[in-house]
Amino acid sequence: MQNEQWLINGNPKGRPLEQDDFLKQVVSLDELSSGEVRVRVELLSFDPSQKGQMENIGYAAATEVGQVMRATGIGEVIESKVSSIAVGTKVMGSLGWQRYATLPGTQVEPLSNAAPWSAYLGPLGGTGLTAYFGLLRVGQPTPGDTVLVSGAAGATGSIVGQLARLAGCRVVGIAGGPDKCAWLVNELGFDAAIDYKNDRVKAMIRETCPSGVNVYFDNVGGSILNDALACIALNARVVICGGISRYQEAVLPPGPANYFNLVFQRASMLGFLVTDYAADFPAARDRLAKWLASGDLLYKEDIQEGFEQIPATLQRVFNGANFGKQLLRLESPD
Amino acid sequence: MQNEQWLINGNPKGRPLEQDDFLKQVVSLDELSSGEVRVRVELLSFDPSQKGQMENIGYAAATEVGQVMRATGIGEVIESKVSSIAVGTKVMGSLGWQRYATLPGTQVEPLSNAAPWSAYLGPLGGTGLTAYFGLLRVGQPTPGDTVLVSGAAGATGSIVGQLARLAGCRVVGIAGGPDKCAWLVNELGFDAAIDYKNDRVKAMIRETCPSGVNVYFDNVGGSILNDALACIALNARVVICGGISRYQEAVLPPGPANYFNLVFQRASMLGFLVTDYAADFPAARDRLAKWLASGDLLYKEDIQEGFEQIPATLQRVFNGANFGKQLLRLESPD
Repeated sequence: MQNEQWLINGNPKGRPLEQDDFLKQVVSLDELSSGEVRVRVELLSFDPSQKGQMENIGYAAATEVGQVMRATGIGEVIESKVSSIAVGTKVMGSLGWQRYATLPGTQVEPLSNAAPWSAYLGPLGGTGLTAYFGLLRVGQPTPGDTVLVSGAAGATGSIVGQLARLAGCRVVGIAGGPDKCAWLVNELGFDAAIDYKNDRVKAMIRETCPSGVNVYFDNVGGSILNDALACIALNARVVICGGISRYQEAVLPPGPANYFNLVFQRASMLGFLVTDYAADFPAARDRLAKWLASGDLLYKEDIQEGFEQIPATLQRVFNGANFGKQLLRLESPD
Repeated sequence: MQNEQWLINGNPKGRPLEQDDFLKQVVSLDELSSGEVRVRVELLSFDPSQKGQMENIGYAAATEVGQVMRATGIGEVIESKVSSIAVGTKVMGSLGWQRYATLPGTQVEPLSNAAPWSAYLGPLGGTGLTAYFGLLRVGQPTPGDTVLVSGAAGATGSIVGQLARLAGCRVVGIAGGPDKCAWLVNELGFDAAIDYKNDRVKAMIRETCPSGVNVYFDNVGGSILNDALACIALNARVVICGGISRYQEAVLPPGPANYFNLVFQRASMLGFLVTDYAADFPAARDRLAKWLASGDLLYKEDIQEGFEQIPATLQRVFNGANFGKQLLRLESPD
């Protein structure tokens, strides 16, 4: 049986991704070894840190040109040499950009049907857990706080804002374009939204957060982080989660000139990686799944189609084309 | 009786201080009111935040052109309408740049002779307390940590490094010039010193802190803060205390481009103001005074002389001319 794969073919450090950064190959599938399962990949997850992984800037194990591009996905077990994992089981794991993934049974996670499968790549997956631990453990919001979040219509930001609302906070989101802003306020219950493409961001933060920002959850870096730092309240927590504005530049862009406002406001800027909270993932997933089931937590997906579209789909998360968690469904290979 | 004063005569925001930013005047002293004391100013303290106060950038109550320049000082009570404060008492307070300060008895602090008077403006004063609370409460060093401090030969930095040594840490200081670096290592017991005027700072931090920096105490901002951020260890605390590199520029200089390393290292950048710890100042002063008496804590003073030299003495703290806590002794007015 044949397997199609997208390999890493370039290091995009300091520039936008290009189609040539990936190379397609067809290989024969080896026979399964003891302890392994074979998964037909059905759904792949895309997020900005995947470019960082190609650049080896510190997120995860190093990558190399010639490797299958790493990605989290969901698929169905079509062959198993693990007694506890039956053929037909839906599993999640680091499946990669390929039609079939062969990996140890210990490296896949069988999924329960507490939520739609795709939710395990969004609100119940890395982005949802990042929102959960980043906001609740690192940002430590208290009821009545004003929580500001950038990338607010994104997979992480939209969950951050809704969790802040559930925590009794006033929530303001920053997103690109009127459609995303309307979604935040009208559907997700944000108290206000700032369109960074049209509004003067700092003035709008001051207007929508008149008592200052108690928790700022930063998904973007750059001038928006700097504007937010100008508006923090006493003892504010600035949670650094993502820095998408840094991912495409040849030279590291300047840091936030307003960092010194941390002193005047006795505030803190906090980095975290969600993997440090792995022991608590199951409990967090349970809570998130209940909020999904009750309708307290909404999410949006942008699902592209087709194996050929995989590289172009990763580019979408950098140009803001996606609205909702970026996924891709592989067509059936038959 | 006549009083001589230096008034604020300009706002030096975005540029270095100039002599014309201050204007001398002679006024007659009013009669003392009930509850007031009159203090003959003997010793004045100088530090970078005084320029920030002239610029009204957020440290303290606003200042205006025409006001007596604010400064902490020590003097002797020469007239008192407060029953509990006798003539002849040595007191500390916000005396200002003048020969005589007239102020409510509640706003001066009688000094004990647990240490030389001048120590109350240095290791037992704002700079020593800033070091104490900034390092111990905010930075939270644990034995075995590597503590890096910039402005290490300064009034705050030199105490930070010695307190870190007392806390069982490995201590590396960054200072300007071989004399200051030699003093840190040979007299104060620092494990290493980096001369930012001659050494490649980032390479030297890596060399002297091979396991990374657990606590970085920043007195300077700018490129040194950025270099330190590149070298932080897992869970590091970056304590932001001063930003002298920001005080003389017309445009806010760029922030630290390496701030995102906070994420990879799950680290935090923490602002604080020492005034928040006022309730614990007496206990901290007691400990610091004991370490001064035992010789565990050393300090150096740079004492200029004369009322006419006051404005020029503030400029010294910005050009690195001072070696040790910057003070000025007023000649006797007789």
